[in-house]
Amino acid sequence: MRYVLGIDIGGTNVVVGSVAEDGSALHALGSEPTHAEAGQRDVLDRIIALAKHTIAKTSEEVPGADIIGVGVGAPGPLDTKSGVVLLTPNLGWVNLPLRQIIHERLGLPAALDNDANCAVLGEWWMGAARGTRNAIGITIGTGIGGGIIIDGKLFHGASDCAGEIGHTTIDTEGRHCKCGNYGCLEAYASGPNIALRAVEEIKAGAVSRLASYVGGDLGQITAQTVYQAAHDGDDLALEVVNDTAKFLGAGIANLVNVFNPEVVVVCGGVTLAGDHLFVPLRREVARRAFKPAVSVCRIVPCELTGTAGVYGAAKVFLDRAATAARKGSGAAGRAVR
Amino acid sequence: MRYVLGIDIGGTNVVVGSVAEDGSALHALGSEPTHAEAGQRDVLDRIIALAKHTIAKTSEEVPGADIIGVGVGAPGPLDTKSGVVLLTPNLGWVNLPLRQIIHERLGLPAALDNDANCAVLGEWWMGAARGTRNAIGITIGTGIGGGIIIDGKLFHGASDCAGEIGHTTIDTEGRHCKCGNYGCLEAYASGPNIALRAVEEIKAGAVSRLASYVGGDLGQITAQTVYQAAHDGDDLALEVVNDTAKFLGAGIANLVNVFNPEVVVVCGGVTLAGDHLFVPLRREVARRAFKPAVSVCRIVPCELTGTAGVYGAAKVFLDRAATAARKGSGAAGRAVR
Repeated sequence: MRYVLGIDIGGTNVVVGSVAEDGSALHALGSEPTHAEAGQRDVLDRIIALAKHTIAKTSEEVPGADIIGVGVGAPGPLDTKSGVVLLTPNLGWVNLPLRQIIHERLGLPAALDNDANCAVLGEWWMGAARGTRNAIGITIGTGIGGGIIIDGKLFHGASDCAGEIGHTTIDTEGRHCKCGNYGCLEAYASGPNIALRAVEEIKAGAVSRLASYVGGDLGQITAQTVYQAAHDGDDLALEVVNDTAKFLGAGIANLVNVFNPEVVVVCGGVTLAGDHLFVPLRREVARRAFKPAVSVCRIVPCELTGTAGVYGAAKVFLDRAATAARKGSGAAGRAVR
Repeated sequence: MRYVLGIDIGGTNVVVGSVAEDGSALHALGSEPTHAEAGQRDVLDRIIALAKHTIAKTSEEVPGADIIGVGVGAPGPLDTKSGVVLLTPNLGWVNLPLRQIIHERLGLPAALDNDANCAVLGEWWMGAARGTRNAIGITIGTGIGGGIIIDGKLFHGASDCAGEIGHTTIDTEGRHCKCGNYGCLEAYASGPNIALRAVEEIKAGAVSRLASYVGGDLGQITAQTVYQAAHDGDDLALEVVNDTAKFLGAGIANLVNVFNPEVVVVCGGVTLAGDHLFVPLRREVARRAFKPAVSVCRIVPCELTGTAGVYGAAKVFLDRAATAARKGSGAAGRAVR
């Protein structure tokens, strides 16, 4: 069986695994802390070491396994054609020719794409969006990202920026966002902003048991704390989750109106809120979006928790290699090297 | 030379013309009031009469012209595959097999698409978006519609609803919209709502010469009145146009962030406001959207005023016929009949 190494580089962890060419198996899954603060060289060394370890372990688990290439998902913005990461504030990388580095140090052909794109492609290939032609994925963590699948292919747009869902405006004069604007979806529904809205309410006098989850230190409240408290029936936490559903619902309704997809996959820790989130979220989308578009669109949590990015990175390599084989050594061919 | 009849059915007028297969010429352009109030049968009779007149006139203008088919743009929602208009509140049509009717009464193969899609495809083919791969068009009139071109093809989504830009939310608790929701782009920036915002300001005491354009009858103020007054330097009209630019800018920034297109074409009477609109509009998009996406995206007024829908309807027919020829008698083949 032929395998592709999938490398998912995040601000907190790097995850690597070997994915069977047909997606039927994932071997030698491993993870390391990214430790961005240790510097670019150190982070790259750690990624390469983990990749080599994964390759060796794959050969142990599947004797004779043929690893044909590497797909890499990294925070953007990046240039998929040249394989260069333009800027990653979280990792401190600027104009890093990541695909070339991975290719040279592992001796395998490589392809690069955005981390959110990889996660969404993974969910489309082997997860919650499989079997569809047109899908949208939203990744909710420290920030909010997204990816768009059209006709079974990642849609990149004119400059690899398509899917910047986190900075779509849902309220022209709303909450201030890290990006400098007001009313971005991310300013309401990212993990840190979900926690922040809860803390703001407590400081404004709302009654809640949330503080007791963190020994009274409100600065320790995270989005996960809010989901836990919501499960435990805390009124404020339930309200914050419900408001999150409304904000996300407005953002997703916009996507449903514009893209008319078959499925919207919601990825990230926010899915821990379960039905407390998804029931009002689906209601809000149904209220805001065009009925004939709502009626054909499922809104579902991700299925490949922790591995969607690895599956997707591997699939990016496979798709690019197939395009390169079809088109020869032209522009598409150069996207794999 | 081979020609395709383009029929653009609007709530106010029906426009018909013969478009050369390569888009190089438009002959026998004609228009009739729709008179929706006269009833479905009467409207259809008038469309067919105009179409037959156009065919005869084309033969006069271009002896030997070969008319190979008909493209029809109609208000939606509609089903492009079956050629049925599902519901058009403005015309009172419900489940009307429009493609079949046009086909039978003209004796020509026909294809059907949404009117906004046709206008945007026309601008992509022969107007402001020509030469691009990915483009978005926004049509601003009584309502706000839109169309999306991906890889040189209209993108329809899962149920022919893609491009419902008018009902994307820009303010979750904003102005009430006809659709029942709050804060839709259309509730701010459609023609009637541009006029309404001006009237609201006047009633609230704003000083303006706008009333003098309509003999003091505020109910007669239209968006066109506002653009005229803005050109004449009226402060309130300039403020209303400037606010329109901000609202449209938020909506367009969302599209730029999500689609990363090469061009956004703005169609409709609103382009009459000229630089009073486009200068602050581009500034607002640049302020709100992701820089690498903004830097590759032009925001321009339409070029084919009054004929984009005719060009686009003809192009819809040509594209469907080409797909049908390639795929044979399958699903795509059935979209032209």
